Amino acid sequence: MKKKIKINKIKQIALKIIKRQGYNETESRQIFDMRLFAQLRGNDHGFVGLFGWNPDKDKNAGEIKTIRETKLSALIDGNANSAITVMQKATGLAIQKAKVSGFGIVGTKGTYNSTGAIGYYVKQIAQENLIGMAFSGCDAYVAPYNSNEAVFGSNPMAVGLPTKKDPVVLDFATTGMTWHDLTEKNILNKKLTPGRGYDKEGKPTLDPKAVMDHGASRIFDNTYKGSGLSFIIEALTGPLVQAAAFGILDEDADWGNLVMAIDPELLMNINEYKKNMTKLIKRYKKARRLKGVKELFYPGERGNRMSERCLKQGVVEIEEELLEKMVAEAKA
Amino acid sequence: MKKKIKINKIKQIALKIIKRQGYNETESRQIFDMRLFAQLRGNDHGFVGLFGWNPDKDKNAGEIKTIRETKLSALIDGNANSAITVMQKATGLAIQKAKVSGFGIVGTKGTYNSTGAIGYYVKQIAQENLIGMAFSGCDAYVAPYNSNEAVFGSNPMAVGLPTKKDPVVLDFATTGMTWHDLTEKNILNKKLTPGRGYDKEGKPTLDPKAVMDHGASRIFDNTYKGSGLSFIIEALTGPLVQAAAFGILDEDADWGNLVMAIDPELLMNINEYKKNMTKLIKRYKKARRLKGVKELFYPGERGNRMSERCLKQGVVEIEEELLEKMVAEAKA
Repeated sequence: MKKKIKINKIKQIALKIIKRQGYNETESRQIFDMRLFAQLRGNDHGFVGLFGWNPDKDKNAGEIKTIRETKLSALIDGNANSAITVMQKATGLAIQKAKVSGFGIVGTKGTYNSTGAIGYYVKQIAQENLIGMAFSGCDAYVAPYNSNEAVFGSNPMAVGLPTKKDPVVLDFATTGMTWHDLTEKNILNKKLTPGRGYDKEGKPTLDPKAVMDHGASRIFDNTYKGSGLSFIIEALTGPLVQAAAFGILDEDADWGNLVMAIDPELLMNINEYKKNMTKLIKRYKKARRLKGVKELFYPGERGNRMSERCLKQGVVEIEEELLEKMVAEAKA
Repeated sequence: MKKKIKINKIKQIALKIIKRQGYNETESRQIFDMRLFAQLRGNDHGFVGLFGWNPDKDKNAGEIKTIRETKLSALIDGNANSAITVMQKATGLAIQKAKVSGFGIVGTKGTYNSTGAIGYYVKQIAQENLIGMAFSGCDAYVAPYNSNEAVFGSNPMAVGLPTKKDPVVLDFATTGMTWHDLTEKNILNKKLTPGRGYDKEGKPTLDPKAVMDHGASRIFDNTYKGSGLSFIIEALTGPLVQAAAFGILDEDADWGNLVMAIDPELLMNINEYKKNMTKLIKRYKKARRLKGVKELFYPGERGNRMSERCLKQGVVEIEEELLEKMVAEAKA
C-alpha cells in the first residue's frame, strides 16, 4: 500500500537519516534530491535506497579529486564518497565544459555504491539545453547472452534530450532484473519469473537469493543485442574510466560511471531542433495504440506526469512499510 | 547455397554494376568496400544491397556540402548522393576533428538510401584509436512498443571500441525485423514469426508484404526499453540533423545519420585503457557457457572471424542466386 506524505515532512525524516549516515549538509541535500526525484517517479532508486548497498559515508572517504582534465573532459576520483555526490559533481562539470566548448565528457572512479537513477543526471543536462548521456557500472551479477555466469553489472544507460517543455529522458538497465528487483522479491519471499535467473553453479533458479549469492540475472532482451549493449557499457564504465569493477564481483573493486553533454548547436540551431522535437513527439503521441493501451508515453513522460501530479499537491507517494521504517530509523 | 568466389573476381563484377548505376571511380570504390565488409560478415548490407532501395545515383545529386561547421562538429548535406559516400565523408571528418580536438560529431541529411552496415564506419573510427558511435535514420516502418503503427525507422546504433587487436564493434537494429528480412521472406514466400508484424490497419499479420505495404514491424525486444532507444535514435537522426524522415513514411523526405568520435585520451592513457580492454575481453571469453554454446563472441568478433577466414584465402562467400544475378547484371 502506498501513502501520500508531504514532501516537507519526508524531507525532514530523510535528511535526519542521511546526516546520521555521516554526510554533511551539501551531500545530504544532493542525496535527498536524487532520492526524491526517483521516489516521485516510482523508480527503484527512491527512499528505499537509504537502506540499500553501502548507504553510509565511507570512513575512508577523502576529497573528490580531478585526476585528469582537458577543456572537454575530466576524470574524477570519487575517493570513496557517495556515488550520488560524485556523479552530481561529474554532471556539473560536463555541463560546464559543454557550455564553453560544445562537448563535455566526465568519467568517475573510486566509488562503491550506486549513483541512483542516472536519468536524474541526464535530465539536468537536458534542462541546460544540452544532450545528456550517462552510463553506470557496478559489481558483476548479470550473465551475457549464451552464458549463465555473472560478468556484467546492471549497466544502465540514460539519454536526455532537450525539448520545448520537459526533456525526453530514457533510463533503463540492461539487466533483466535489477538488484532492487531481487532484493524486493527476496524480502517478500516471491519467486522469479522462470528463465530469468541462474544460481552460482549456473543452474536455472526461481530463488532470488540464489541469484544474489554469486548467481546471475539474464540480459533484458535475452539476445546478442542487449548483451552487446551491456558489454559496451561495461567497457565505458570500467576500462575507460580506470574503475576496477568490470567483469568481476569483488567488494574491494571501485565502480565507474561516465557522463557526457553535447550541445545541439554543434549541429543546428537549438530552436529549430526543438521545433523538430515537438513534431516528433506529437507524431508519436497520436500513433495508433494496441488494444487496452490508453496512451503512448515517450521516454520519461510517465515519470514526469506522476511527478507533477504529486508536486502540485506538495506530496510524494511512498510504500507504507518503507515510511514506517524511515520514521523508526530517524527516531533511533 | 553459398559459394566462394575470389574477391578480385567479385570486385570486377560489382564495380561494373556500381559504375553502371552512375557512380564515379571514388564513389564506386567506397560503395564496394562497404558492401564487401558486410558480405564478408554475412551482414544484410552485402552485395544484395546493389539491388536494394534506391541503388542508382540520383539524377539530381549535387555536391556534398558542409552546411555548418565548428572545431568539433559538422552538418553535411548529402545533396541526394549515395548515403554510403556521404557517411564515409562524415566518418572521415569526425575522425579528423577528434584527432585534433578530442571529439568530433558529424550529422548528415539530404540522402535517400541506406548507409549500409554502420558498424563499418565505427570500426574505422576505432581503428584510429578513437571510440566511435553511429546512428542511422530512414522511413518509418517500425511500431513503438504498445502501438501497431509505423513511427520509427529500423534505427540501428553502432559503437566501436579500440583494443590491442581487432576493435569491439556493436551494430544492431532496434527493429525486430529489418527491411532486408522482410524483402527476403517476401521473395522466398516465407511467413513471419507470429507477433512480429502488423498490416496497415494494425492487424497482426504473418505476411511480409503486408508489413512492407504501410504496415509495421515490432521493436526488437517488445518492451519500453528497445522502444525508448529507438525513439532516441529517431531524434538523433531526424530533429538533430535537419533530416525530414522522422516519424513518417514519405519517399520525398530525406534521411539522416549521426556519427561521433571520442578520444579515450580525454579520460585516460590509451595504452592503460587497452590493457583494461584486454582484461575485460579475456574475462568475458572464459565465462561459463549455456549448454550447446561453443564460444562466447564479444560484439563484432564473429564477423571478424568469418571475415579473416575468407580474407586469408582471398575469397568471399556469396549466395549462388545473388552471384548469378550480379553476373547477369554486369553483362547486361
